[in-house]
Order: sequence, then C-alpha cells, then structure tokens
Amino acid sequence: MRMKKREFGLLVATATAMAPFVAASSARAAGKSLVMGVSIPAADHGWTGGVVYHAQRLAKLLMAEHPGLRVIVRTSPDATNQANALEDLTTEGIGALVILPTNPDPLVNAIKQVKARNIFVTLVDRSPSNNDQSVRDLYVGGNNPALGAVAGEYIRTHTPDAKVVVIRGLPIPIDQQRQNGFDAAIKGSKIQILGREYGNWSRDDAFKVMQDFLTKFPKIDVVWCQDDDMAVGVLQAIRQAKRTDIQYIIGGAGSKDMIKKVMDGDKMVPVDVLYPPAMVGTAMILTAANFYDSVPVRGNYILDATLVTRQNAKEYYFPDSPY
Amino acid sequence: MRMKKREFGLLVATATAMAPFVAASSARAAGKSLVMGVSIPAADHGWTGGVVYHAQRLAKLLMAEHPGLRVIVRTSPDATNQANALEDLTTEGIGALVILPTNPDPLVNAIKQVKARNIFVTLVDRSPSNNDQSVRDLYVGGNNPALGAVAGEYIRTHTPDAKVVVIRGLPIPIDQQRQNGFDAAIKGSKIQILGREYGNWSRDDAFKVMQDFLTKFPKIDVVWCQDDDMAVGVLQAIRQAKRTDIQYIIGGAGSKDMIKKVMDGDKMVPVDVLYPPAMVGTAMILTAANFYDSVPVRGNYILDATLVTRQNAKEYYFPDSPY
Repeated sequence: MRMKKREFGLLVATATAMAPFVAASSARAAGKSLVMGVSIPAADHGWTGGVVYHAQRLAKLLMAEHPGLRVIVRTSPDATNQANALEDLTTEGIGALVILPTNPDPLVNAIKQVKARNIFVTLVDRSPSNNDQSVRDLYVGGNNPALGAVAGEYIRTHTPDAKVVVIRGLPIPIDQQRQNGFDAAIKGSKIQILGREYGNWSRDDAFKVMQDFLTKFPKIDVVWCQDDDMAVGVLQAIRQAKRTDIQYIIGGAGSKDMIKKVMDGDKMVPVDVLYPPAMVGTAMILTAANFYDSVPVRGNYILDATLVTRQNAKEYYFPDSPY
Repeated sequence: MRMKKREFGLLVATATAMAPFVAASSARAAGKSLVMGVSIPAADHGWTGGVVYHAQRLAKLLMAEHPGLRVIVRTSPDATNQANALEDLTTEGIGALVILPTNPDPLVNAIKQVKARNIFVTLVDRSPSNNDQSVRDLYVGGNNPALGAVAGEYIRTHTPDAKVVVIRGLPIPIDQQRQNGFDAAIKGSKIQILGREYGNWSRDDAFKVMQDFLTKFPKIDVVWCQDDDMAVGVLQAIRQAKRTDIQYIIGGAGSKDMIKKVMDGDKMVPVDVLYPPAMVGTAMILTAANFYDSVPVRGNYILDATLVTRQNAKEYYFPDSPY
C-alpha cells in the first residue's frame, strides 16, 4: 500500500502544477455508509446470465473502491418473487436500488413503494410504460432502434445487393423498434428481404425457422437474427443443411460465443451489435457515484448499439461470463 | 490502511455468502496507465467557473481511485485556443478526452482529429449540429426542454393564476428549447404571461430588463428567468424598486448562491432547476469507467432538470465552488 500512496502523491504533485486543486471539503466521503440493493432476474445462461455475472463483478469492484459500501445482489425468477425481494431489500436498509425488472409493468407499484421511502432508484433495460421520475431516478438502457439500424447499415455497406432473411424476436415493442431501425437503414437500397419470421429469441425456435427458410429459399446471402442466442440456432441449421451460399449472419447483444467468433475472424460472424448485459454495471457505477462523488446522475442514459468488429471485440469479451 | 483492508475482507465475506463471486480475471486493472485530457472553457465565475471547479475536484478523486490514471485539466478562453489545447493534449499522449467546447461547431474538426487517433472522446453539454458517433463516443448533457418544463409546472402547481414575466437568454436553440418546455407546461392553465424579453444570460442585462418590466407592470406575481446569473440581476432590480408584489422568482442551473437561498428557505427563491456544471464530473467518471471497469459507456446521457427544493438542496451545494 505504501508504494501506491507514494505514486498518488507524485500524481497529485504533477496535477497541482497544472491547475490549482480545490479544498478538502469536497474530497470523497470515503467511509460513508451505503447499502446498495441490486435486484435482477435469476439466470445461469443467456443474456440475463451475463447480467448476473456483471452485477457480481461490479459489486466486488465497487465495494473495493468504497469501504463504506455494501452491495447486495439478489436474483428473482419472476415478477412476484422480485416484488418480495424488493421488500426484503428495503427491510435490510438499502439506500439505493438498482433494478432490472423481470417484467416491468407488474413491478411498477413495488418500485414506486421503494422510491417513496427516499431510496435512490436506478432502472435498467426494461422500462415500464411510464418511465419517468415518479418511478426511478436514473434509467440506463440499450438502444433498440439503433441495434436494428447498425445491422442494416452494415449489410447495406458490405453486401448492397444481398438477399436477406430476417428472424425476429417476439411481437412486442422492443422487437418492433429493432425492426423499424433495420427497415429505415436499408430503405432505398437494393437489399431484398426474402422472409421475416418470429424466432421468439429462442435458440431452438430460431433453428426451426432457419430450417424452413433454407428449404424455401435456394439462395440466401445474409441472415439478420437480431439476437446472439438465436444466432446459435441459425448457424446450426446452416451447418446441418451444408449450405454454402450464406455469406454471413448478424446477431445482436454481445454474447461471449459470438464476440469470440468476431475476435477470431470467423467469416460467418464478421460483426456483432452491442446490447450489453454489462449495462447493469454502468448503472451500479453511476448509482455509487451519486452517493460518493457528488455528481449529478439522475437522468436518461441510452447506450449505443456499438458495432463489434475484429478490431474492438476484445473490449467486450468476458471469458469468465456465462454469456 | 490495515483497518480498511480488514473491513473490505469482511464485506467480501458477507457478499460471498449472498452470491458467488466471479474469478479474478475480471478484477480491475488497477495499475493500467491512462492519461485523460479534460478540455473546458476558462472561467473563474459563473456556470463555467463551476465546470472548472468540478473538473479539478473529479481529477483529484479519480486519480486517487486509479493509481495508473493521470488527469490533465486544460482551460481555454475561446475556440481557437481550445483547438490548440486539443493538439497539445494529443501530443501529451492522452488516451481519452473529455471536452466541454467553448463553441462546438468551430471545434468539430479538431475533435474529429482527436477521435481519428483512436482516443476515446466524451462530449459535454454543448453539442455540434451533428452530435453522433463520428464526433464522440459519449455525450453527457443537461435537459433544456425539461429545465423550462419543470419551472412551468412549479408555477402552475403553486400559483395557478400567476401573472408572470419571462426573461429569456439569447435567441439560440438552447433558449428556444427551454422556452418550448415552459410553454408546453403552462398550456391550458390560467397563468398569464405579461412579457418576454431577452436578458442575454447576463446579470446586468437581466437587471435592466427587470427594471423595465417593473416600470411597465404594476402587479407581477412570478418571474421566470431561466438562469441563476440572471436571477441575481432580477432580485437586485426588485429590491431597488422596493416592490412587494412579486411572490417568487425561478432561475435555473444550480448556482451556489441560489442553492443557498433555497436551502435557507428564502421565500423569493423557493426552488431552483438543475442544469449542473458538475456534469463534467459525471462525464469524467464514465470515461474512466470505460477503461478501468469494463462497462459499456458509449451512448447518449441526458441528465434530468431536477427541481431543487429545501429538502434536497444540500445535495447540490458546493460551498468551495465559485458557482
């Protein structure tokens, strides 16, 4: 520890020469006590498996950073259980709640009850119909329209005449937003959409949908399947059918397996589009910053749907994560 | 230090009992070297004075947190100087730039040149016409329409029949956004707008505009002046004219003096609406998190125009800040 202290002393000295520093009254309240509850869906695989992994990773990092901070991560299988978890966390004296709801609308009242106790509420990813200050202090989410748009732009740029099949998720708003973004991005291009079917964000269902597409269409250039879990089923169907016409597929989210393929230069998976489960970590960092760093964090934070390429894939690869 | 270490050990033990922790490979790269350049307008007073204060405060906090981090804060009086500062920072080997431009459009090319060198760019507050991923990785800004809306809603709720005078800023988009938010919030109410004039976000000009309003209108209930610097001029004009009809005024931004008045229960300044200079600190924390915490931060972050009341004012009061 002594070495670190000396290092810091030197750094401050350097910095002081550049600009005068402020008085000590604004220094971090390092020992300030706070219990942060993190309520997330239970999962050991898939996107929510990644959420659990990153919530636990950041809990560790943040507690190391702030000696007065205790982070409690609780997972719940459904909305009823999660409502109970919120009550338990409140009883345990949390001063802040980071919640990624299993299902937002049935949980609105439970979340509002937490907020009514003057507990700072950060909502992640899934927002209820009324996602405003009456429900939460901070919202952190991904960008669904951009997830579709980035995939569409990539296809338009790299294979402007492509025959494309689309595997959608479920007929809910998130899916429609992604689809609208995609459609806007390819509008006016020579890209031809052969078919669109729902794969229910499921590996098995996407496998079956892709089998149907392969039977129906003798020549397919590109598959856009909106989600990395579905991409696994799609790749399996292509492999089993021994089809060589498909040039590449584009999924979405940023699963470990797909990011690895991008990293390794797999020609079937040249890119991925980010909708990262690690966003729960971003939400936890900002929630801690509200208490320890006296910076404004209340607001609406929409993360980019970053295009993951061979160049930047390493940044998004977590080998220890289940996702 | 030993005590802190033991405390942390206990906390981890507690946490481990709650949820299993992830492997060490995801632990913070604590010693990772990074130079973060922070380029902001020069100022020793006003909103930008607050920006300088908070940039220096967070530089100190973040360097204490990350032994490998060096933060260089540079202030520039105008766009030409700031473009030169960006070149200097690039020469100094920055890996990340946090910039609050003096004037965004003339600086777009200079910012793009930084980004082209694979330097992570966070843009704060003032966005150029094309505020997208070609210019920056992350944008952090305030909410101008909400700044007007929150003021309008407060007036509508607390003085539904008020006769109001409005002092606007300058005829630029930010001002129009604030005005539109305000107008939408009072639409359909019994609030009567006696007059609207530009005060150029200047204390002196707002003083003169308010003098004119006081001469012209024998009965004024509320003044909305959109900005705390202008609020100082407004309060001075009211005091000099010894007028007692004005019930209260609403400024905006969150200056030290206005926050103090709210905190102290000054009847003329019951609330303030946040557009906080500390947002530069939020931007710096997220920029550091990109490198040290492996969480996604690229995106668009719009901070709320939080209503500052006697209850929460302390949270936004920085006695050492010039603003």
